[in-house]
Amino acid sequence: MSQLVPPHASNELKILALKGDELKIELKKSDAMTKLVCSSREFGDLIMLGIGGFTPLEGFMGKSDWLSVCKNMALENGTFWPIPITLSTDDEELKVGQEVAIVYEKNNEVIATMLISEKYSIDKELECNEVFKTNDINHPGVALVKAQGKYNIAGAVKVLSDGGFPKQYGDLYMTPSETRSYFKEKKWSTIAAFQTRNPMHRSHEYLAKIAIEICDGVMIHSTLGELKPGDIPADVRSKSISALIENYFVDNTVLQSGYPLDMRYAGPREALLHALFRQNYGCSHLIVGRDHAGVGDYYGPFDAHNIFDEIENELVTKPLKIDWTFWCEKCAGMSSMKTCPHEQKDRLMLSGSKLRHLLSENQEVPDNFSRPEVVEILRKHYSGIKDSDKVKVELKGHSAK
Amino acid sequence: MSQLVPPHASNELKILALKGDELKIELKKSDAMTKLVCSSREFGDLIMLGIGGFTPLEGFMGKSDWLSVCKNMALENGTFWPIPITLSTDDEELKVGQEVAIVYEKNNEVIATMLISEKYSIDKELECNEVFKTNDINHPGVALVKAQGKYNIAGAVKVLSDGGFPKQYGDLYMTPSETRSYFKEKKWSTIAAFQTRNPMHRSHEYLAKIAIEICDGVMIHSTLGELKPGDIPADVRSKSISALIENYFVDNTVLQSGYPLDMRYAGPREALLHALFRQNYGCSHLIVGRDHAGVGDYYGPFDAHNIFDEIENELVTKPLKIDWTFWCEKCAGMSSMKTCPHEQKDRLMLSGSKLRHLLSENQEVPDNFSRPEVVEILRKHYSGIKDSDKVKVELKGHSAK
Repeated sequence: MSQLVPPHASNELKILALKGDELKIELKKSDAMTKLVCSSREFGDLIMLGIGGFTPLEGFMGKSDWLSVCKNMALENGTFWPIPITLSTDDEELKVGQEVAIVYEKNNEVIATMLISEKYSIDKELECNEVFKTNDINHPGVALVKAQGKYNIAGAVKVLSDGGFPKQYGDLYMTPSETRSYFKEKKWSTIAAFQTRNPMHRSHEYLAKIAIEICDGVMIHSTLGELKPGDIPADVRSKSISALIENYFVDNTVLQSGYPLDMRYAGPREALLHALFRQNYGCSHLIVGRDHAGVGDYYGPFDAHNIFDEIENELVTKPLKIDWTFWCEKCAGMSSMKTCPHEQKDRLMLSGSKLRHLLSENQEVPDNFSRPEVVEILRKHYSGIKDSDKVKVELKGHSAK
Repeated sequence: MSQLVPPHASNELKILALKGDELKIELKKSDAMTKLVCSSREFGDLIMLGIGGFTPLEGFMGKSDWLSVCKNMALENGTFWPIPITLSTDDEELKVGQEVAIVYEKNNEVIATMLISEKYSIDKELECNEVFKTNDINHPGVALVKAQGKYNIAGAVKVLSDGGFPKQYGDLYMTPSETRSYFKEKKWSTIAAFQTRNPMHRSHEYLAKIAIEICDGVMIHSTLGELKPGDIPADVRSKSISALIENYFVDNTVLQSGYPLDMRYAGPREALLHALFRQNYGCSHLIVGRDHAGVGDYYGPFDAHNIFDEIENELVTKPLKIDWTFWCEKCAGMSSMKTCPHEQKDRLMLSGSKLRHLLSENQEVPDNFSRPEVVEILRKHYSGIKDSDKVKVELKGHSAK
């Protein structure tokens, strides 16, 4: 029997969340600690550290790791890592050797404790240029780095919270240990992860089905992290994906689940991070489409494909590189730019804003663009949005993919 | 830039065909040698040895390699090899140390010379049970082994003929050196081979396109070896495949070519041989469908998938394991048993004999089963067959896949 892929650079998942008595004691201890408020991105990173999604990291990165990751996509010890995982503060008082309690800005909950091993300042321009390939403040990932505090603080973390994800999302939220158990129970060893933060139309179904044709199964993996205005809420998205699975997928070939991380929109570098943490979840492949994890026009459509050629064997999890997909009338089927030789006019393509328009105006959406069962759920969602809000959603929605 | 897969167990192709003066001299020498008549299967094997398709073999196998291949799928030195490559004779006079000229039974041409290093008898039942998993004389591969001479003779070969393939098939016939050059010129490094001895309908187009979605290109690789009664002749098959490529594939994503080997119908073991020699042709993947290289009911539908799990890293070339494919009306697209959850009645499936019937009776073939451009060519072929022959073709055609 074939095995699941191993966790990244480790024989086992590094789960930094405490449980039972250890958790109770640490929570009590945290009362007396200085509080450090973390952002949504840092919160998502902490929850990932807690569940082993960021194996083999033990906490937030120090300066040498930060620099090495920026410049060489590797920790100082050589372990592959494509994006800095850092925590920042403006607090001048915090000192090396001190223990802090990290609380989430949204709800003031103590998420983790950290023994500060290093406090350092960074060249934010360097980080942005290396990781995002731009310093443009209009890039949402750059904006987050630029909004960070003056100092980064590093150290091993003890995670004390599940971030509320199990309660909020129920079975949809699965940790790497849970997906690995699921795959083993199903006797799957080759699993492709399909990354999404949107409902799935036929083009996405096609991507997932290509993966199923050649793997044991597919994991449709949605971000449950921070959404942007105009995004479909997670419950509507999940319900529409369930409707697709029920009507158009074979039983026991697909798992829908969610993960707690925010998008950084780092394009190619983030595609690598997406593959890395999917390896921790037990996936042998990551579907990488056109402009994966990109935003605006910052990245070429195949940058996220090509970057995998630079790393070759650093990850066990491999990309399934697939081009833009669509229905083509002359092909009489789903195709991509790589498999359809016909003309633009033969292809059924709708932009996100065109689709939102059709849905909210109660106009017909072609079956070959989206399954009727999916359209029905989205239509209900849009009919529940007040007219005044619709406009806001339209204006605020930008072209992040 | 990624590289092509290396030849099997060797840094370079082992090309056993002589050229230029060496060829002339050996041809002259062969006049004086004892002649040994070879079968179509042995002829195909010799041509493959000549062009490096059977790298790293240097000739026909001796007894210890034969036994080790039967029992352990490896030469005595441990090199992976799934099917014996042997030459047989009834000639009592032939002796170790003697040089023989091997002539093809069909045309008496000298194909190769061989210095006999070993003469041995084999347990044919053992070979058949190990390789074909049956001793049934109705199995076409078993029948060939049973029809072999009393002795196997082994030795390094010098190949003196191209078998007439370049002349008969022109550009369609490509050697492993030629396909490797082609792939390099196109800058492809991941290539899936699609094995066929039949025209391609939509189900086969779908298999090839799944491969193109995730690889740089696909090589549609037809056997140019011995055909069976009822098979579509190579020129008609090739023309119909060209029509499909011209109308339904993107330029520079597909190469159609042919190879000189006969089918053995050894199912799973032959799937491994198919992957092995595709590695020599430079392909990183082999599409392995349901009952690949099977015949009748001798093998389970997924035996040829599962056997790849037993060898894991013996071959660099990996299988793309795909289930039975078809058009499904409810999916409104091509699907497989793994991706279509609907009922039999929603699926468009025609047997080979049903299709032959529709074509020869000039009845309509559904577009979603076969492209009209392909159907037109096949229809012309069938309309050229006399009514009396049609019956013969029907009766003789058996269920080999």
